[in-house]
Amino acid sequence: MTTTSTSDGYLYSETGLKAGLPSESVISPPQKIDRQVDIWDVAVIGAGYAGLVAARDLTLRGCRVLLVEARDRIGGRTWTSTIDGYQYEMGGTWIHWCQPHLFHELSRYGLTKEIMFSQQYSDNDRVMTAKVLSIYCDIDGCQARRVIPLPYDPASRGEVAERWDAYSASDRLNQVRSQLSTEEIALLQAIIMRTGGSADLEKIAFWDILRWWALCGYDGNGLAGSTALCRLKCGQTALAQSIFREALDTGYLSYMFQDPVVRVDQTDKSGATVHCLSAEVFRAKRIVCTIPLNVLSDILFRPSLSGSKIRALTSGSIALASKVNFEVTGSGLRQWSGIAHPACGGISYACADGTTPSGTTHIAANIFPICPEKDIETIKDALLRIKPLGIKKIVFHNWATDVYAKGAWTTFKPNMSRESLGPLQERHGWLFFANSDWADGWRGFIDGAIEQGMKVAKQVATELI
Amino acid sequence: MTTTSTSDGYLYSETGLKAGLPSESVISPPQKIDRQVDIWDVAVIGAGYAGLVAARDLTLRGCRVLLVEARDRIGGRTWTSTIDGYQYEMGGTWIHWCQPHLFHELSRYGLTKEIMFSQQYSDNDRVMTAKVLSIYCDIDGCQARRVIPLPYDPASRGEVAERWDAYSASDRLNQVRSQLSTEEIALLQAIIMRTGGSADLEKIAFWDILRWWALCGYDGNGLAGSTALCRLKCGQTALAQSIFREALDTGYLSYMFQDPVVRVDQTDKSGATVHCLSAEVFRAKRIVCTIPLNVLSDILFRPSLSGSKIRALTSGSIALASKVNFEVTGSGLRQWSGIAHPACGGISYACADGTTPSGTTHIAANIFPICPEKDIETIKDALLRIKPLGIKKIVFHNWATDVYAKGAWTTFKPNMSRESLGPLQERHGWLFFANSDWADGWRGFIDGAIEQGMKVAKQVATELI
Repeated sequence: MTTTSTSDGYLYSETGLKAGLPSESVISPPQKIDRQVDIWDVAVIGAGYAGLVAARDLTLRGCRVLLVEARDRIGGRTWTSTIDGYQYEMGGTWIHWCQPHLFHELSRYGLTKEIMFSQQYSDNDRVMTAKVLSIYCDIDGCQARRVIPLPYDPASRGEVAERWDAYSASDRLNQVRSQLSTEEIALLQAIIMRTGGSADLEKIAFWDILRWWALCGYDGNGLAGSTALCRLKCGQTALAQSIFREALDTGYLSYMFQDPVVRVDQTDKSGATVHCLSAEVFRAKRIVCTIPLNVLSDILFRPSLSGSKIRALTSGSIALASKVNFEVTGSGLRQWSGIAHPACGGISYACADGTTPSGTTHIAANIFPICPEKDIETIKDALLRIKPLGIKKIVFHNWATDVYAKGAWTTFKPNMSRESLGPLQERHGWLFFANSDWADGWRGFIDGAIEQGMKVAKQVATELI
Repeated sequence: MTTTSTSDGYLYSETGLKAGLPSESVISPPQKIDRQVDIWDVAVIGAGYAGLVAARDLTLRGCRVLLVEARDRIGGRTWTSTIDGYQYEMGGTWIHWCQPHLFHELSRYGLTKEIMFSQQYSDNDRVMTAKVLSIYCDIDGCQARRVIPLPYDPASRGEVAERWDAYSASDRLNQVRSQLSTEEIALLQAIIMRTGGSADLEKIAFWDILRWWALCGYDGNGLAGSTALCRLKCGQTALAQSIFREALDTGYLSYMFQDPVVRVDQTDKSGATVHCLSAEVFRAKRIVCTIPLNVLSDILFRPSLSGSKIRALTSGSIALASKVNFEVTGSGLRQWSGIAHPACGGISYACADGTTPSGTTHIAANIFPICPEKDIETIKDALLRIKPLGIKKIVFHNWATDVYAKGAWTTFKPNMSRESLGPLQERHGWLFFANSDWADGWRGFIDGAIEQGMKVAKQVATELI
């Protein structure tokens, strides 16, 4: 089977830096449109997990759906590049059976057997991680169970929760600092930084850490286990393909890749029109818009979005990381995990993530704020300074400079849950908004994207059918 | 809205014992059959969660489905009786966000906001529960993470797992007995008995406890939290109704309640015939059989089931409990939990589960081996001996004497995972078997039923479409 290449991502090897990477996620040819359809039941903007799930659920219910995507591939901020028989995750990676929407999809497509352990934490790491997080999150004498009893239900939050939402990750750290050793503080900072995707702990809402903690069963190993332990052997793109194929098999899905949406009009009462960069225009009764939080302001909406939604967009998301995969010589590194704070030369987090078919080691890292495509030597030096390794390849995607993402996963700032979550989820006329960036549960994770796609598809179907 | 009554369950009040209970789960009229259909795409036998999910997923994919059910209601071993404005769960009750298939369904129907905390464990109970389970399950120095790394994947089990599968819950208890106080041993026995549904710890596979432990994130509070902490405010029947209605809304579902299947023939190559007690006969290309483990042998299959499946059925399931709800005077009991071992006069487990609209307290209990419909006075005495309370009502379902269940949830005996799980899941010609009793993950829970229904529907759809 020949694999096509996406224009996303970069490969650095001995022959230098090259844009674009091989990936099964590319859809070729990029268009398949039923031109008989005059008005679509639903136009889904964006073919990430939220869009794919919405398209599948709606076509299964018999709706005629047009899926429009700016990129040349499916998966959005989650995709896999296969190089020399090894699956590199270029974005969303980590999965766990306590992520219900994601796990349900794996189960649906028979992929639960593809779950593999990536990192191999030592028992020592495990115990220390559990300890520091337990101290950090225990704000009510029962591990936050009282303050955040139902992590999926924002409406269940009481006054006490509102108060904690104002705290930054750093504010909370200052409260417990005296209970922790220097080494423990460094570990905690590194975990928060890795989870929050920013080196600036002032910007990360403590509430976001608490929510993850509660989602994982109020348990530090749960948190570590769910957020950076297991991934799919076959690569995430296999899941995205399964969802896409099931939608296609209904016969109700048309699609257009490589054509960014620039404008959405709702100027008459019967529906909306979607305007693409290519000047193609589509009419639809309903729109499911899955454009990420940091990109939504780039689209022209007529009438314009509500003031509260625009304010929420202005807050923005703060995780501006690159996902960087190193292939290094040797295989004796499987237990290595270089979580570090403050970030060493831009590498906030690196861990041995697998062994390639040729016996080399794959090291996965998050890097910010350095721009790897402009400054690959700094990245190389940073890794070599942490550990002297023979770098054979660097395979990366800079999510911060990606114009269709403008950031990696979403972390909220203090007070943003209270002020922005509702407005971000709110519909706008015939437009519905689905994205992991404003999920109720696993915000910023693959699970949250699936949650959102499913919920919005259900709402839309209820109105249409 | 008037509520109809099911013939299931019993109500004991000052006027005596009466069979049958009011429930929204009753389907009336019991039949709606499209008589134009000569050969059904799929006949689904059983309208519990596995059958409902299979019927919904298949009708959504455009299959013509006939749902056949012996009872007068949906939900199988999970249903709600509404009496004086209070929702009594008569079977499956406990839910948690770490149960992915179940949670996905709640999310789909907007029911996650209905999750409520039933019991209010004291912090003391919580800490002691975590401690005893942690000692009990720590078979590899890292809380069983090495022995059972992927709890949903039976194929991932190594040789060490096979060895542990031979242990009974009691064998393992004997190994750790010296590390526990008398009080701790009693608590552990009570937890195992409650989880396993049997007072005989020799019969409960230690592996089943380990699997739950791993599913809950290798955490004792996870285990307690997932298996007896949260339930649905609106009652489980609301979820069953949502699934049933979505299937109906496709226009592809026909159904027949109150007509038990007695025989399934596969004597020609084009499909199978389902023979009901009423002498109705239906032809279908595929059958999804959701009849429980302890009942499957009552149906005549031609050709007969495989030897390995028949052997697996002979092992049977051991949880032969009644679900008994007491309404008692007063409301000051919300923190009370009467978990006890050995069972006090048949009550192995009782806990304050809610406050009724009239201000009385609802106490939920599991009772075995006493037969409450024959011996209500013993049940009353048993509760009064634990705590002197004014009993106003007893609302119960004896799952052991229920001919369509012959048991409550499923717990496996030692070695049964290894020997029986595969054969129980195996198809038989055009017949597919879906039931929580042989789920990969949350066996014996609502989640497992949904997992099975979804997986089998996917398999069937792949063959038909």
